[in-house]
Amino acid sequence: MQAQLIALDWGTTSLRAYMLGSHGQVLEQRALSYGIMQLPTPPRPISGALADNGFELAFDEACGDWLRAQPTLPVIACGMVGSAQGWVQAPYCPTPARVADLGAAMVRVRTRSGVTLHVVPGIVQNSALPNVMRGEETQVLGLLQGLPADTRNEPLLVGLPGSHSKWVRVVEGCIQQFDTFMTGELFAAVSAHTILGRTQELGGPFDGVAFDRGVHTALSTEGDIGPLSTLFSARTLGLTGQLPGSAQADYLSGLLIGHELRSLGEVLRARMKSSRLPDVVLIGNDQLCERYRRALQACDFPCVDVAAQATERGLWSLALAAGLTQ
Amino acid sequence: MQAQLIALDWGTTSLRAYMLGSHGQVLEQRALSYGIMQLPTPPRPISGALADNGFELAFDEACGDWLRAQPTLPVIACGMVGSAQGWVQAPYCPTPARVADLGAAMVRVRTRSGVTLHVVPGIVQNSALPNVMRGEETQVLGLLQGLPADTRNEPLLVGLPGSHSKWVRVVEGCIQQFDTFMTGELFAAVSAHTILGRTQELGGPFDGVAFDRGVHTALSTEGDIGPLSTLFSARTLGLTGQLPGSAQADYLSGLLIGHELRSLGEVLRARMKSSRLPDVVLIGNDQLCERYRRALQACDFPCVDVAAQATERGLWSLALAAGLTQ
Repeated sequence: MQAQLIALDWGTTSLRAYMLGSHGQVLEQRALSYGIMQLPTPPRPISGALADNGFELAFDEACGDWLRAQPTLPVIACGMVGSAQGWVQAPYCPTPARVADLGAAMVRVRTRSGVTLHVVPGIVQNSALPNVMRGEETQVLGLLQGLPADTRNEPLLVGLPGSHSKWVRVVEGCIQQFDTFMTGELFAAVSAHTILGRTQELGGPFDGVAFDRGVHTALSTEGDIGPLSTLFSARTLGLTGQLPGSAQADYLSGLLIGHELRSLGEVLRARMKSSRLPDVVLIGNDQLCERYRRALQACDFPCVDVAAQATERGLWSLALAAGLTQ
Repeated sequence: MQAQLIALDWGTTSLRAYMLGSHGQVLEQRALSYGIMQLPTPPRPISGALADNGFELAFDEACGDWLRAQPTLPVIACGMVGSAQGWVQAPYCPTPARVADLGAAMVRVRTRSGVTLHVVPGIVQNSALPNVMRGEETQVLGLLQGLPADTRNEPLLVGLPGSHSKWVRVVEGCIQQFDTFMTGELFAAVSAHTILGRTQELGGPFDGVAFDRGVHTALSTEGDIGPLSTLFSARTLGLTGQLPGSAQADYLSGLLIGHELRSLGEVLRARMKSSRLPDVVLIGNDQLCERYRRALQACDFPCVDVAAQATERGLWSLALAAGLTQ
């Protein structure tokens, strides 16, 4: 089948390339480790001249052959490739942002082989403590496109767990407000570079009991003192023989995610002046979404769904809206 | 003047040795980097035989010459040297613990040169989330010894900021309860190993305005969402031109300390069923105590004092109580 679009999800640590067909379906896909912070370096010839720009090299590896076979294919990209450290800076659009309109704010970069790459802008929320996202806006749009038409305009809370979890309030296709939690990156830094990591025994299967225990600790009276203090319990429960080394990483993961969701729930209730928490849809990798799904249930968030293929769908929608394809 | 006691403050990353005179005054002192996690390794002769035990080597460097000059001097040590990773394990005493009585629970280790080292036990609080300390109990005792006799029995909150801050409730010379916050170690891990460190420009003088801004952010409505989220503002304020790289480390420091003290205040008020926070005395290095003093004032903690020479005084008192010296 003839391809219609090349769509790139180009983040800090990975680059995913999709070849999409006439209805946006995925014909072929590739995952490379060439995120913008780990681009390839050895120079090699591209279009007859030696190239040493890491973005050019990564781009050519991701989809150079697809473009040589179909040179007129349009190409779109979202994620950190549009940041100040990226290939071209695509300035942030402010909230409230109608995600379907982001296609109009795309920034173009011309590759040395003559291809135009269309880069989706990120979103900034200019609150007292500002918030930014890049890539997640495209996933939110893809999620909305995947919903039944009659529910697409209902208010929604979209959770995008990861190094920096995003919680995005969407009303009638518009990103109204969002929050960021550095939970994932913090878990990694704490496990690798503090005393808590020394007694963690890694490599076993997911320990759901330890994870749930961490979540419930964060939600309990003991959790009132906050994560800066409860963190230490991963060590003291170990020291006192109440938490084996093999359970400590999942306990810590549950503890941090529990604190994230506890705070999120409290802030949402205050903002919405309602005790009922909103329905949540998650976007992310299966294992991480499963952790969040367990923790969200423990925190009384209703109706947790997990969305698939959000990035590809979002990029397809933006390309359609921008007239790159039909 | 004749020495009466050798006192060692032997922690994870440092070893301080004091030669104390007949009233506990410091006659001589040394600071070595031989904490229990970074002991010396090259074997060398001690008392006529080749020694390769890192504890022996560090001990000999710290006070071997003092002991050769006065072989009958008693020796006492507090800190992580008594932990499971230390030279000898001095089991934790449970709270409530009368600090002056800890001398009775000291554990002895005999060095290869025939000296007996008396190691002070740590303290464990067997609460739902257990808490432990090692070394701080000795500092608390030293602080009590330094107070005027008529105030020594008044309830007190002792703050010991550091990698793991301790907040110790002392009533009539007894450690009743304490909390730990991993603020210092977390600040170091976040600065060195997350995205927040990438834009920090270090090396300038202390930026009090940035620090206070971090504290006030933690205490504000924006701080309600907790440190896992507000952390990200060190990046986004930078990205939006509102916080220069040179201010980001002190902002982050203020933010984390602010969250620590906000949580501590809330928990203390709930525990004590009183809106008035207790008087605080701080023990620690001058620069860190100055940061905490600023932040405690912003958090409405009254009457903040800073105690000096707490470790030496505490070790002297314990040696007296144990009959090691007179």
